[in-house]
Amino acid sequence: MDAINTTIELSETERRDRLRLIRSDNVGPRTFRSLLDHFGTARIALDRLPDLARRGGAARAGRICTIDEAEAELDACRRYGVQLRAPQEDGYPPRLATCDDAPPLLALRGARTTLMRPMIAIVGSRNASAAGLKFAGQLANELGEAGFVIISGLARGIDQAAHRASLSSGTVAVLAGGHDRIYPPEHVDLLGAILGGSGAAISEMPLGHEPRARDFPRRNRLISGASLGVVVVEAAHRSGSLITARMAGEQGREVFAVPGSPLDPRSAGTNDLIKQGATLVTEAADIIQAVGPIMERPQPLPLREPDEDLFAPDPENHDRAQIIALLGPTPVSIDDLIRLSGLSPAVLRMVLLELELAGRLERHGGGMVSLT
Amino acid sequence: MDAINTTIELSETERRDRLRLIRSDNVGPRTFRSLLDHFGTARIALDRLPDLARRGGAARAGRICTIDEAEAELDACRRYGVQLRAPQEDGYPPRLATCDDAPPLLALRGARTTLMRPMIAIVGSRNASAAGLKFAGQLANELGEAGFVIISGLARGIDQAAHRASLSSGTVAVLAGGHDRIYPPEHVDLLGAILGGSGAAISEMPLGHEPRARDFPRRNRLISGASLGVVVVEAAHRSGSLITARMAGEQGREVFAVPGSPLDPRSAGTNDLIKQGATLVTEAADIIQAVGPIMERPQPLPLREPDEDLFAPDPENHDRAQIIALLGPTPVSIDDLIRLSGLSPAVLRMVLLELELAGRLERHGGGMVSLT
Repeated sequence: MDAINTTIELSETERRDRLRLIRSDNVGPRTFRSLLDHFGTARIALDRLPDLARRGGAARAGRICTIDEAEAELDACRRYGVQLRAPQEDGYPPRLATCDDAPPLLALRGARTTLMRPMIAIVGSRNASAAGLKFAGQLANELGEAGFVIISGLARGIDQAAHRASLSSGTVAVLAGGHDRIYPPEHVDLLGAILGGSGAAISEMPLGHEPRARDFPRRNRLISGASLGVVVVEAAHRSGSLITARMAGEQGREVFAVPGSPLDPRSAGTNDLIKQGATLVTEAADIIQAVGPIMERPQPLPLREPDEDLFAPDPENHDRAQIIALLGPTPVSIDDLIRLSGLSPAVLRMVLLELELAGRLERHGGGMVSLT
Repeated sequence: MDAINTTIELSETERRDRLRLIRSDNVGPRTFRSLLDHFGTARIALDRLPDLARRGGAARAGRICTIDEAEAELDACRRYGVQLRAPQEDGYPPRLATCDDAPPLLALRGARTTLMRPMIAIVGSRNASAAGLKFAGQLANELGEAGFVIISGLARGIDQAAHRASLSSGTVAVLAGGHDRIYPPEHVDLLGAILGGSGAAISEMPLGHEPRARDFPRRNRLISGASLGVVVVEAAHRSGSLITARMAGEQGREVFAVPGSPLDPRSAGTNDLIKQGATLVTEAADIIQAVGPIMERPQPLPLREPDEDLFAPDPENHDRAQIIALLGPTPVSIDDLIRLSGLSPAVLRMVLLELELAGRLERHGGGMVSLT
């Protein structure tokens, strides 16, 4: 089956240091990963942060999350029944861990075993049709019986129908805000039912974080990233579910879509997805058949060995100047930068890291970077 | 555009002889074509029929349609406003002429110019939903405006909606019976409207032929054969429209299908078609875009030059015996027979023709034959 059977377990000190690192200025999931690749532990990375940012040309040092702040957040999590888990720890969805922007620490509540099982995402319109809601429930039920966990976004409409139909077989809600800021508020009961069963809820946001509009697309990448594939049941043109489908495609996940009448605007998005190559779904078997071969393949491993970077020399000033000259506001690929600069990949990555920590570099999907 | 610009015009004697040939025992469209390939004119083929059937081992000679019978049919046609046209004559749909089982003479009423224009078939359920009927009409209307003739089967439901919406732009009804045996009878008015506009009706059956159940699948091959592509709007599992779609595929025509909810059994067939590779249609542009490149390609030519067969030697008795030994009730390909027998293609074709005229051979699609 799909789960990685060997998990690690962080020391509590390393967990706290990782929390400090991801809560510090200019450190997102990709920067976090680069730092860990370069320095091996969060502790060493934290020590080096000010120097790296200065070398990257920061006007002033970014704020570093203190030990006290991190301890306070960990205490709050404990009180709220929230665990912070790192990739490859038990409870961190194995597929999600393979994404290059996987959250360094995932806040979770509920059954860790469920989070380790193979997942299918079911998403769709908030204002779905009766037929769409019925079909979403039917599909979630059949996929649950076939052993899949259903993952979705706790929204009204299709999400809700999918969660409800998989309460007993296992379902995972992915939140856009902190665990104490449920959206929509009336779904606190649904979340209770999910956690009361064998389900779970996950978020990459700290407690107290109120979800804003821009947090939803960001959240959607977790839904697709944790799953083997995403099923879009109903979606109008330009709806949020299509963002999840696009992210699924970028992450190499299967994209499934349920067809509908061309006269129903709620099917415009799903019909378009099928035109673009998504697999048409009329029954659970369509999905089970498609993901079977994927589950049998071994999981992709992290992209590179950290050792290579651990012993790389520090960049020289002229290396840094050369890279800055090559960069601009238009995203370019890291591969192109390596080729054009002639620098070693390890040195180039260190320069990019410095610029990032100085708040001067932005990372995009697909290994692209630009100056901010 | 799509039409062949150069047409031929048969002499009235040749037309009468061709009519006699296709109305004679054991002569179907494929046998007719072989005979014409072998003997060049219907007149010579008619003269040779008894001898060929005897050589093929016929217990008794098949009936040959007399001159008087053919003249009587031609007179009846004239009185009914029906013309009998041969492939490559004006009024014979150019795409239909390229099919290997194209009717040797097509009975037509209405506007010959319409029959020469590029056609799209729209077919579907007789008990269609309101949405299906509306969409069929909308599609027919938009395709008509784009210059396509709509061809369909004059049935209730989707066919009717497609014809009605294209009355002014041009529509063609394909009949399963003779022109004086309209089915369903209540669509005589619709047919009147089609012929009153710039439309036409075609049939391969003689006047007076009452359509039987088995005539409908046979008729469906004319709908798909005459068109650039077939659009199935709504179709349940195992419905007649799916036969048309299958024939379209076998004839190398484009297959289009309109998606629908998995919970609506009237969309089960169309969703299945899309799973099998049919192009999903939500608007006329999907069709126009797909058939554009096909219209720009030159039409496929008839498969072989008749000259090759005109001067082939008569088969020897041992050739005939060898072929009969290779044949059985299981269809085999003519290519395999050529390879296994070592005979020249022209001689093999003549042996098959003899057996056919003796009523001992059955032809299937894709160049397959079996003993009856």
